[in-house]
Amino acid sequence: MERAANRRSSAGGISPTVIDAGETSGGRAIRAIDVIRKKRDGYELSRGEIDYLVRGYTLGQIPDYQTSAWLMAALLKGLSRTETANLTDAMLHSGEVLDLAEFSAAKIDKHSTGGVGDKTSLVLAPLAAAGGLVVPMISGRGLGHTGGTLDKLEAIPGFDVSLSVSRFREVLHACGCAMIGQTAEIAPADRLFYSLRDVTGTVESPFLICASIMSKKLAEGIDGLVLDVKTGSGAFMKTEEDAAFLAELMVETGKKMGKKMVALITDMDQPLGLRVGNALEVEEALEVMRGGGPEDLRELCLELAAWMFHLGGRAATIAEARAVGGELIHSGQALKKFREMVALQGGDARVVDDPTRLPRAKHSMNIRSPRGGYVSAIRCEEVGTACVILGGGREKKEDPVDPAVGIILHKKVHDRVAPGEPLCTLMYNSEARASRAKTLMEQSYEVADEAPVPRRLIHRIIPAAQ
Amino acid sequence: MERAANRRSSAGGISPTVIDAGETSGGRAIRAIDVIRKKRDGYELSRGEIDYLVRGYTLGQIPDYQTSAWLMAALLKGLSRTETANLTDAMLHSGEVLDLAEFSAAKIDKHSTGGVGDKTSLVLAPLAAAGGLVVPMISGRGLGHTGGTLDKLEAIPGFDVSLSVSRFREVLHACGCAMIGQTAEIAPADRLFYSLRDVTGTVESPFLICASIMSKKLAEGIDGLVLDVKTGSGAFMKTEEDAAFLAELMVETGKKMGKKMVALITDMDQPLGLRVGNALEVEEALEVMRGGGPEDLRELCLELAAWMFHLGGRAATIAEARAVGGELIHSGQALKKFREMVALQGGDARVVDDPTRLPRAKHSMNIRSPRGGYVSAIRCEEVGTACVILGGGREKKEDPVDPAVGIILHKKVHDRVAPGEPLCTLMYNSEARASRAKTLMEQSYEVADEAPVPRRLIHRIIPAAQ
Repeated sequence: MERAANRRSSAGGISPTVIDAGETSGGRAIRAIDVIRKKRDGYELSRGEIDYLVRGYTLGQIPDYQTSAWLMAALLKGLSRTETANLTDAMLHSGEVLDLAEFSAAKIDKHSTGGVGDKTSLVLAPLAAAGGLVVPMISGRGLGHTGGTLDKLEAIPGFDVSLSVSRFREVLHACGCAMIGQTAEIAPADRLFYSLRDVTGTVESPFLICASIMSKKLAEGIDGLVLDVKTGSGAFMKTEEDAAFLAELMVETGKKMGKKMVALITDMDQPLGLRVGNALEVEEALEVMRGGGPEDLRELCLELAAWMFHLGGRAATIAEARAVGGELIHSGQALKKFREMVALQGGDARVVDDPTRLPRAKHSMNIRSPRGGYVSAIRCEEVGTACVILGGGREKKEDPVDPAVGIILHKKVHDRVAPGEPLCTLMYNSEARASRAKTLMEQSYEVADEAPVPRRLIHRIIPAAQ
Repeated sequence: MERAANRRSSAGGISPTVIDAGETSGGRAIRAIDVIRKKRDGYELSRGEIDYLVRGYTLGQIPDYQTSAWLMAALLKGLSRTETANLTDAMLHSGEVLDLAEFSAAKIDKHSTGGVGDKTSLVLAPLAAAGGLVVPMISGRGLGHTGGTLDKLEAIPGFDVSLSVSRFREVLHACGCAMIGQTAEIAPADRLFYSLRDVTGTVESPFLICASIMSKKLAEGIDGLVLDVKTGSGAFMKTEEDAAFLAELMVETGKKMGKKMVALITDMDQPLGLRVGNALEVEEALEVMRGGGPEDLRELCLELAAWMFHLGGRAATIAEARAVGGELIHSGQALKKFREMVALQGGDARVVDDPTRLPRAKHSMNIRSPRGGYVSAIRCEEVGTACVILGGGREKKEDPVDPAVGIILHKKVHDRVAPGEPLCTLMYNSEARASRAKTLMEQSYEVADEAPVPRRLIHRIIPAAQ
């Protein structure tokens, strides 16, 4: 899930009279207090009221305490589809919206709601670009137990995720894909709102999540977007129903704004692939680009790429689009594209062909199964947290990230395991951290006599009829 | 309803990590974000969590924006009876709780939720004191369309409502009653919470209203409290159900804290008495203390006084208690007590026997009935607002109050009226204000062919079985 690094100072003390920035709706001045009350009482806000709120907060005219009261009312009372689209649009237009009209090719991006071991973006940007799409990908950092694409890219020595918009455009012209972090110009309202939501218990609203994600993604100037909405123990949306609700909301919101949209509800009940940790995940993404890699990861990359090609008009059917992706990997063109992008963004492109150049942890430790049987569950959030504890993510926002550390899984759900056989290996640089992570990883694996009923990798595609 | 004049500066910008003041509950540190989430998700907060929130906000450790998110969650999800009592107690103990143990007489107060033309406190404090009770009354100022006891008292030249606690005690010793405004020492948490609620759309929660009222009233060191919960077009609680819900909540909360409690749900569908405006209301209160005055006002004063005497153990039955009150008025002892209190608090006691010494408006204007018939309604909130517009209340907090202005009603609901007969008289000092108030008063009176079904003055007594 998205998180903004920037935080703002408060708009000052509680003002004795309510804010009235002089905006009007149907001739009457809009007041923040009335917008709060209206949402509190369950009414639908007008376009003008939502614009007033977003603009007022972004400009510092509406204080934090009124905005947080509104956010809580919005979380508990919900927003209509129209309100959600209007909120998205107001946040989108709080900053710069990239105009990529100069590119004749279809501009298609992918966004994931966040998971553990999810390195698909690293494969998809070059793969889609190799297939003739333009991929202007703006990504985030690790949040909570989930990894972040920017942190993974920065495991490649020299890789710069902080390009200016003009350099971003140059890289897109040169190789068709570029991967950067959110800039100050893109959807500033979202950064401010997200920072406030983070500390006021107002993150977990599908409506607010939708507006946050979509306002940033639509600012990329794209024609279409493939959403990977995760569900399961390692996802923010634990149930398929919650994931589908959010997915439908985002698809509808994007379509209202004239974008081609599809959402895949995919499994995050165990980590994706076998490697969790920044450099480890780059290595695994490279394996996939070389035609190998763990089956679930490869499969998800091909499926998501197929939908990108389909939305971008490169293939009439999904089966055809999958074949396009498979061929681009087989021919080495995806890997070539990744090499180009790494070099263009200042990274050490030799890493692509020699992953030993990636940072490596000094120590490793096996975690062994206390019994024989079948792996019946891997508590995914714990695996992500174990990686954070090893230093692969941030416990506090200011923490540095250690790109080398992480976890290599040897067994996944459904695998047979003998007593004493290694379940996974911790890659670490600190004994103290390793010992905390070990406890967590021991708790995360469940071994039973019977193999569990397998979960599908792709639960649902929204809209279903596509 | 209560409102605090004091406002605080914000606790600063949004902090990058959530507040953790190091408090613990069951060994685990309490964090504001978790308390917000717990209430958001509808769970009951522990005593420790509520204490943490109230103390943290009062000390400025928990910022406004987290507190306002919590307030909105509390408004929308509600509080349990235990949470309400714990919140009341935490706010009560955020400041000084008066110890009046030195008084052997029962200490009984009355509190009204606010209305238009409600000058009962001015009668009740001296009347109850004349009957041997101690009445340590801490009151508020006008809020919205409703009048405030402090503003009314200040219409008496020289009357000082800002006594120190030690002077307050001296006046109580000298005459058995004293009437002042909230001090900085009494329930400071309530002042801070109320200021924040006022600008974040979180005033209208019976649970938060209960905690706010009861924390201040219980800080007076009283043995018992008579609540006058208003219902009707001029009250904050428009329906009898809402009024009864709040009344039951306050009665239960007070009883939990060992206080003798009763609540009367009384009518505020039209102004109480015939005069609205500060000096005008003092004059009408004096009429009641002299044994006259309008019937509804006299009746309500006697009923509320009877419950004060009953709670204070001065009479076994309400009928007996009413007789006590009637006799204290008839004998002039109530008026004598008022004269004493006015003098002790620095006021011009000659006003008591010569109300022409009260401030008087320079101009007056009759508002006449456009038709004959019966007064079928007087929109009470409009009457209160008209008085505010004349200068008798504050449109903004900083506005000065003109003690002289107001409205004298000649006709009340159910009265017969001839075409062109005066319905009321505006007493004013500014033509511009009078013209705005005139329009409002014309709209507030409704005259119909038939007399309406009369409303009872006292709708309900809680608890019913008392």
